[in-house]
Amino acid sequence: VGTGEFEVVAWLRSRFPLVGDDAAVVGDGLLLAADAIVQGVDFSARSDLALVGWRAVWVNCSDIAAMGGRPEHLLVSVIAPPGVEVQAVMEGVGAAASAHGCEVAGGDLSSTSGPLVVSVAVTGSCDGQPVLRSGARPGDGVFVTGPLGGAAASGYALSRGLARLAEGGAARLAGATAMIDISDGLAADLGHVLDASGVGVILDDVPVADGATLEDALGGGDDYELLFTLPSGVDAPADSIRVGTISDDVSRRPPAVAGWQHRFT
Amino acid sequence: VGTGEFEVVAWLRSRFPLVGDDAAVVGDGLLLAADAIVQGVDFSARSDLALVGWRAVWVNCSDIAAMGGRPEHLLVSVIAPPGVEVQAVMEGVGAAASAHGCEVAGGDLSSTSGPLVVSVAVTGSCDGQPVLRSGARPGDGVFVTGPLGGAAASGYALSRGLARLAEGGAARLAGATAMIDISDGLAADLGHVLDASGVGVILDDVPVADGATLEDALGGGDDYELLFTLPSGVDAPADSIRVGTISDDVSRRPPAVAGWQHRFT
Repeated sequence: VGTGEFEVVAWLRSRFPLVGDDAAVVGDGLLLAADAIVQGVDFSARSDLALVGWRAVWVNCSDIAAMGGRPEHLLVSVIAPPGVEVQAVMEGVGAAASAHGCEVAGGDLSSTSGPLVVSVAVTGSCDGQPVLRSGARPGDGVFVTGPLGGAAASGYALSRGLARLAEGGAARLAGATAMIDISDGLAADLGHVLDASGVGVILDDVPVADGATLEDALGGGDDYELLFTLPSGVDAPADSIRVGTISDDVSRRPPAVAGWQHRFT
Repeated sequence: VGTGEFEVVAWLRSRFPLVGDDAAVVGDGLLLAADAIVQGVDFSARSDLALVGWRAVWVNCSDIAAMGGRPEHLLVSVIAPPGVEVQAVMEGVGAAASAHGCEVAGGDLSSTSGPLVVSVAVTGSCDGQPVLRSGARPGDGVFVTGPLGGAAASGYALSRGLARLAEGGAARLAGATAMIDISDGLAADLGHVLDASGVGVILDDVPVADGATLEDALGGGDDYELLFTLPSGVDAPADSIRVGTISDDVSRRPPAVAGWQHRFT
């Protein structure tokens, strides 16, 4: 077994069948997801602690948005070295929870000799059927919810971003066949949809954020826009941007870019 | 606001009203809890990685046991420095999940320049009303599910322990008025029940594990036995051990011991 992140994830999916989408769908429509952010990887030692807390909530809510669901409860574990003001982190968590319409239900505090870690789990619900990564079909249009590459162009500066909850719900109601949030870059995340659906893609035109390059848009992560596919002839929700078409030729892949697994800074 | 762990927890409970019990009870009887374990705090750099994964699941399932519930799904985030074999951790997680009757539904992998962190969240269910910390009443008997201090006496060696799920369910069915798992030591955790219930306690006789001292039993954490209270006249489940009686005198507290917030090793 390889030790690259994607290889380990592939092993995890074979070992734990519920793992694979942005959030797991369990029992009667409960959505479950978790994401941890780590100092030195996702933010720096100089980052504003409230923005760190906000970001930990945002990225988790984005996983629920990518299913077409709504976040409900958060569990927040803060693993902090001496001197880190945990309350500042948790004020950011609380503000982001309110902004996303969910509530902190519990968590854990622990000390560490290492970098700050904020590990969040989220529960969510969905009025209808959650949208998986695996339903894209040849001929479907491929859409994103906004221009890409802005986070990379900003040097991955932390901000008070909001998960695309309304957009994810609208895509689900419009009949989206597959959906994912763009956390690792368009090329990588669209690649996950293609792999899960057993299809290829023909990209037309990728919307590039102000100040960003096409490479940022294809390879830069952390934008947390959504990507979804819709059958041809279906009206896309307002403000969504068409970027291409699903192909039955699995050899048609997004352009190769350096991608983004994890930065070590 | 103070920076000691218990002071921060008190602040969190005032800021986030759902926080407070071993697990939060949300919506229609869904139980939610999270606990992270950290290298250098909860285990050492030489610890067996499968036992680390097992322990992360065990302590989370123990929080569900302390409500009288059953664990259902786990979200497992592994934040690992280079060279740590994540699969070994996850094999321990998977084995412990099977042993506790629950399933891994998702999680996250992240890299770190610091110590290994395994952060788990757990969902659970409960056939009846979950048992909180706040229901202990004067005259109730105080019981534990086994002898205490064994983990401290062993030097907190990792083991393949099992959360007291059957015992927690039996205590709930017997009519337990309050329950908690003993993670920080009898004195500290019984203290949490007294605080939440607004009562005191008269301790009689504390069962001490083989090789342990009374101080280990009162102050040593990590045993993950359960403590619960039962109205007088109610038959306690088989194998539970009576350790005292709840008093209306809130000044009656467990003996002061050094306690255990977090070790730095």
